Amino acid sequence: MYSLTVRRHAFIAHSLKREVFGPARDLHGITLIVDAEFQAPALDADNTVVEVVRASRILKDVLAEYHYKNLDENPALAGVPTTMEFLARRIHDGVAARAARRFSGRLKITLRESPETWASYEGDVAPRRKPRVKSA
Amino acid sequence: MYSLTVRRHAFIAHSLKREVFGPARDLHGITLIVDAEFQAPALDADNTVVEVVRASRILKDVLAEYHYKNLDENPALAGVPTTMEFLARRIHDGVAARAARRFSGRLKITLRESPETWASYEGDVAPRRKPRVKSA
Amino acid sequence: MYSLTVRRHAFIAHSLKREVFGPARDLHGITLIVDAEFQAPALDADNTVVEVVRASRILKDVLAEYHYKNLDENPALAGVPTTMEFLARRIHDGVAARAARRFSGRLKITLRESPETWASYEGDVAPRRKPRVKSA
Amino acid sequence: MYSLTVRRHAFIAHSLKREVFGPARDLHGITLIVDAEFQAPALDADNTVVEVVRASRILKDVLAEYHYKNLDENPALAGVPTTMEFLARRIHDGVAARAARRFSGRLKITLRESPETWASYEGDVAPRRKPRVKSA
Amino acid sequence: MYSLTVRRHAFIAHSLKREVFGPARDLHGITLIVDAEFQAPALDADNTVVEVVRASRILKDVLAEYHYKNLDENPALAGVPTTMEFLARRIHDGVAARAARRFSGRLKITLRESPETWASYEGDVAPRRKPRVKSA
Amino acid sequence: MYSLTVRRHAFIAHSLKREVFGPARDLHGITLIVDAEFQAPALDADNTVVEVVRASRILKDVLAEYHYKNLDENPALAGVPTTMEFLARRIHDGVAARAARRFSGRLKITLRESPETWASYEGDVAPRRKPRVKSA
Repeated sequence: MYSLTVRRHAFIAHSLKREVFGPARDLHGITLIVDAEFQAPALDADNTVVEVVRASRILKDVLAEYHYKNLDENPALAGVPTTMEFLARRIHDGVAARAARRFSGRLKITLRESPETWASYEGDVAPRRKPRVKSA
Repeated sequence: MYSLTVRRHAFIAHSLKREVFGPARDLHGITLIVDAEFQAPALDADNTVVEVVRASRILKDVLAEYHYKNLDENPALAGVPTTMEFLARRIHDGVAARAARRFSGRLKITLRESPETWASYEGDVAPRRKPRVKSA
Repeated sequence: MYSLTVRRHAFIAHSLKREVFGPARDLHGITLIVDAEFQAPALDADNTVVEVVRASRILKDVLAEYHYKNLDENPALAGVPTTMEFLARRIHDGVAARAARRFSGRLKITLRESPETWASYEGDVAPRRKPRVKSA
Repeated sequence: MYSLTVRRHAFIAHSLKREVFGPARDLHGITLIVDAEFQAPALDADNTVVEVVRASRILKDVLAEYHYKNLDENPALAGVPTTMEFLARRIHDGVAARAARRFSGRLKITLRESPETWASYEGDVAPRRKPRVKSA
Repeated sequence: MYSLTVRRHAFIAHSLKREVFGPARDLHGITLIVDAEFQAPALDADNTVVEVVRASRILKDVLAEYHYKNLDENPALAGVPTTMEFLARRIHDGVAARAARRFSGRLKITLRESPETWASYEGDVAPRRKPRVKSA
Repeated sequence: MYSLTVRRHAFIAHSLKREVFGPARDLHGITLIVDAEFQAPALDADNTVVEVVRASRILKDVLAEYHYKNLDENPALAGVPTTMEFLARRIHDGVAARAARRFSGRLKITLRESPETWASYEGDVAPRRKPRVKSA
């Protein structure tokens, strides 16, 4: 199995308004360091899994919905705990939808919020089926 | 597949008293940088794999057996080569035993002893079966 | 010259409401990775510049004003561009005020907001003079 | 599953002479930071997956073909786009061939060319079957 | 003293054609991770040392002479050992020349070629005097 | 001012037998990640501060006294709190003594014991005067 990974970051504000999240219930912010790992069992004719610059641009496009934003003001996320796990899945589905035209395989998104904590979601990029948008 | 990872460290002394380990046969020490990665196929009602603070506390509790300790003086480890691989498995089983009450899935423990060397053990956290304590 | 450095982090939200800051004018957030470096020309009787655990606790106490907070709601910061440089100075003065009882020397605070950008402020910790609170 | 990883680096020059690679078509160079992860379901009698020093030496020997070299002058690579994915596979096969005498399991090679981009290849180390040399 | 640092990287090929450089005499390449640290005793009216985006663009412009290039083919560098120290100075002078219109203070350029080796040059950015181009 | 830095690591055991050090009073161990930064105002005829391979070898030679050792058994360190600050100074003096034959300038030694704590000592390398061995 081959993989190619690109990294970018986004500066987001949000709050996690449930008892379980303690101090994270207040509005705060994090630097999300985001890795998008494309996995495929074989290389294409140019010996790539995906072309690096194109992969990085797709990730940038998807992160534009989050970068320099307050997620609490995003209507699509109203009432949803925007945990790292949830965001990893949502970014996964966004990257998968954009990449599916030329890439088929597995995609793993990893989000780092601090040197001590990170989360990921890994799933298929299935070119024919519409990407699942709802969180599992 | 989702994952949530927390990182902590421990300062340990030990020796590896077999011919194969060369200079590591003498008593020395390492900073163990320890990652505990919890993996699950779905999120709970709060959109988490495990709650971050609880995960980090479990790892801290398990590392208390090693942190600021000389492993050569631990009777439970007498005569056992305490390699990184072995310690990864032992820490895995300790974290799994503590986490099993609320978490079921896979757990991967990674130990870094230097920027150039690390080891890991990955296995199931099975809430019903007693965690296996013996090294494979 | 000796130094001892401790690192902690804080999750903050803020906005920088001036034309020059472009997209950072909108409310967003960052993970501040904060290094406090204590510098002194000689060691004390225990061979330390400052005791590590105490240094780390002082930094934690000072960061409590920022961690899990929206700086836009802090009255003391109203109308002030809370750039990394400004925050480095403000955290410097907070740590200096708390450390001055037992430490005299230089203090450098470094703030990292991403793997690509960081800022610092370095100044004296003068035990007799009151720490300067106004930004230079 | 257990793993043991060693890291080394190599300084290489190369060019990627196809339209799709944009500025990388010109001769340039990269620092390849190379991780070799050996994976096995059980430990040996010394509690290791592979002995660390031996693993690191094997990786060093394999990287000698690349370190301080211009890959464009290597006849074995003539006309081949020496992408990170391709090199990960080639280094994998080199390490697998050397390690197979004493190690059987999975081997994952990861190559980092910058803090923002990396690639990997993971495959079996099959002691009896000759390692596959052709790229998939 | 305040500072603001930005980081970028460049992929270069070169050779160091003197006896003392051993294997580095052959054409090879490195990933240069480049930090530009701007230092000033006071902040401007926006609480910045330099504006981050502008600083990063200046560094990008200066690195364009090196990124994806073989330094051995640059006539300006003919016969010169392009060591990290030398390149740090040359990049320093390039950044200083571009930054001097709006910035006055100290500038430190650090180049990392591997996780184990780096070099730097630090000097004044003097807005009135022409930047010195010759290596010291 | 120019600088050239090399990094190595050492695995040491020790204990800090004074009240102030809390749990560190027990025998434990750390991975010391050691940076030796050589600083000079000008480059030599080969455009170097010091030759990289030589610098790294000097650091390796000096660390041999610590690597894979229990510092509590070193008679030269009997009764001395072997804090990071103290070790930074001692390693500084060892490197300075060995480097002084060909290098004159400043030398800074930085020791990292964890991702959250490090210490340094910086002083002159004076070729004529004998290096000071006693801690300040």
